[in-house]
Amino acid sequence: MTLIEQAAKAREAKYRVALLPTDVKNKAIGDVADALEANAKDIIAANAIDMENGKTKGLSTGLLDRLKLDEGRIKAMADGLRQLVELEDPIGKETESFTRPNGLIITKRLVPLGVVGVIYEARPNVTADVFGLCFKTGNATILKGGSDALQSNIAIVKVIKEVLSKSQLPVDAITLIEDTTRESTNQLMRLNEYVDVLIPRGGAGLIKSVVENSSVPVIETGSGNCHIYVDHEADIDMAINIIINAKTQRIGVCNAAESLVIHKDIAPALLPKLTEALKEKNVAIFADELSRPFMDGADAATEEDFGKEYLDYIISVKTVSSVEEAIEHINKYNTGHSESIITKDEINANKFLDGIDAACVYVNASTRFTDGFEFGFGAEIGISTQKLHARGPMGLLALTSYKYTIRGNGQIRK
Amino acid sequence: MTLIEQAAKAREAKYRVALLPTDVKNKAIGDVADALEANAKDIIAANAIDMENGKTKGLSTGLLDRLKLDEGRIKAMADGLRQLVELEDPIGKETESFTRPNGLIITKRLVPLGVVGVIYEARPNVTADVFGLCFKTGNATILKGGSDALQSNIAIVKVIKEVLSKSQLPVDAITLIEDTTRESTNQLMRLNEYVDVLIPRGGAGLIKSVVENSSVPVIETGSGNCHIYVDHEADIDMAINIIINAKTQRIGVCNAAESLVIHKDIAPALLPKLTEALKEKNVAIFADELSRPFMDGADAATEEDFGKEYLDYIISVKTVSSVEEAIEHINKYNTGHSESIITKDEINANKFLDGIDAACVYVNASTRFTDGFEFGFGAEIGISTQKLHARGPMGLLALTSYKYTIRGNGQIRK
Repeated sequence: MTLIEQAAKAREAKYRVALLPTDVKNKAIGDVADALEANAKDIIAANAIDMENGKTKGLSTGLLDRLKLDEGRIKAMADGLRQLVELEDPIGKETESFTRPNGLIITKRLVPLGVVGVIYEARPNVTADVFGLCFKTGNATILKGGSDALQSNIAIVKVIKEVLSKSQLPVDAITLIEDTTRESTNQLMRLNEYVDVLIPRGGAGLIKSVVENSSVPVIETGSGNCHIYVDHEADIDMAINIIINAKTQRIGVCNAAESLVIHKDIAPALLPKLTEALKEKNVAIFADELSRPFMDGADAATEEDFGKEYLDYIISVKTVSSVEEAIEHINKYNTGHSESIITKDEINANKFLDGIDAACVYVNASTRFTDGFEFGFGAEIGISTQKLHARGPMGLLALTSYKYTIRGNGQIRK
Repeated sequence: MTLIEQAAKAREAKYRVALLPTDVKNKAIGDVADALEANAKDIIAANAIDMENGKTKGLSTGLLDRLKLDEGRIKAMADGLRQLVELEDPIGKETESFTRPNGLIITKRLVPLGVVGVIYEARPNVTADVFGLCFKTGNATILKGGSDALQSNIAIVKVIKEVLSKSQLPVDAITLIEDTTRESTNQLMRLNEYVDVLIPRGGAGLIKSVVENSSVPVIETGSGNCHIYVDHEADIDMAINIIINAKTQRIGVCNAAESLVIHKDIAPALLPKLTEALKEKNVAIFADELSRPFMDGADAATEEDFGKEYLDYIISVKTVSSVEEAIEHINKYNTGHSESIITKDEINANKFLDGIDAACVYVNASTRFTDGFEFGFGAEIGISTQKLHARGPMGLLALTSYKYTIRGNGQIRK
């Protein structure tokens, strides 16, 4: 089947999936969870081929670890689906209703997006995860996974389609694009007639490429150059604690801190102690001229450092003279993800909350909380860094649109 | 100044405009309204140049009429701005707030989109209109108007900038791109670093071009292939009344009806009478095989007719055997704008409301009500036909995004 034929089938399926009652959707998601566990051996066997190919190809240990599936990870996938079953189904919810002077009753109702395309890298757990999130919200989904995970993805999608088929549900609610060439990705990004929205999940390069080349509406996710600003008056221990957490609790994630902004008045008291703590965690420091004297062993920061998402044990440091300068610096270099101020000054806290242009703006907390589960959404399709549609952690609601239904009794426009 | 320099200034301005209090924004909008009227002579003189050029160029009467400004139209522009002053300012509104078990207080707050780019045709009233809508919602705006309206737009933007300057407000809250070449439009569509969202306003060709070429997130507006479906049981007079209204009350608008879908059982009773009514309004008919015998003088419809937005005194007719077939036909050919069912059958009404994939789905009313003012939003930046962010008539809320503010007292992620 060509990609267009696949996409046409996904579009046909979306009309049926959109109308499925909540209990039918939940039953299917639960059945898929059970079936994934029941077919774990087949999935692991398929994954073994991917792992073998990956080793031959020389994939890094990190990538191989993300690619690997075992009984435990398949159980985790299944449990993730079971958690989805418990969440409230937003579809059909009427969020507003009003009557106009001419008697028209206008009601705003949550509906699925339709066909959701997801482009991602070699993480086979995303396959089941995205299916669950989309199906729960009445969407059909087209998946373009990384070529390194192809056999794993085929095995997982086979299990899902078998469950759908057995339950007389539309098997095209999920479509895997098995052609893993760049051409098929390019084609997918131009299928406006069939695909309602594209969500890229992966590294900065993947996301940039989708944003630049897609004519299908995109939800931009992920890349995070996150800052911690320590204000002129701040609890030094709290600041160090938060900085170490935001930088090192998990270095490869988008809500990890990449850059510090330090008020010059607190630098002498904060930085030597902070430098010790960072050294203990083996974090390399690139510091500007004013902060370097207080940071033993730090290298000189260049302009370029302030714009970098290191995703590594590296941090940059910039000194400022006021909260206003901190806000200006952060708005210049950030990616609209997560930014935090550590302060005892309530006025400056409010200035920071008002002035910073980002999805999540924190006072006295680690940026690492930007996450659908930490926010209590119960699930997450990604973290949006754009301003259209959804911003920050995206739960089930981000996979919905709305329609207006209007009831009349013969009204015409004068 | 280059376009990038202009865009950089707009981005600088957005941070200031975002923080302006409601009363300051309202005062400025009111002042702009007054200033437009006070400077009506200059604006009309500039418009006269555009009109002269337009006539030389051989613009159609319709286009010239849209381009023309006189005292009355300038007053209408000013009054539109004064109405905006009366509307509630959504910016800063907290739409949600909750406390997590770890004590973090998470609040969702409405914020401006940032820099809103609008690409439009030779309608100078849009210039003042868009400024007002964007400024009221704390956005900076970059305008790329049609070349035929350049002198008018320059004159209007000059008046707006003078008011902003006098009030010590950021003059770059509004930017007019005076380079009206296609190259500057192409460049604008790639300025992701500076422009947060693009809204094309105009014909289908303009919108398609922006959707296909923009890497900046786009809100797709406008094009409407709207259907009226007359079900097996329907009030015939109501059906005719609604069809004539939806087709002919104003033919050039996106919510005008372009195609009829008729249940075969009602065709014999409805179509002869309807044909008379359409003839009286000089509406040409392209009908399918089953309906043509009942529609005297109708031409044969081709597949192509069903996909056409005529924007003219023309309508196509398709016969179906059930509401399900009607839904399938409409979902195949519509543009996601406005669709209506005329029926006495409550079950079919609900099937139609559930099954049709469009921004606005009507029962027993004209599609002509899809409009921000008719919906009671008090203003409208356009009518969205996509599913991301906003759908249907877009009022002030569609020009907002949100951010999460998170307050803690030292929380770190475990």
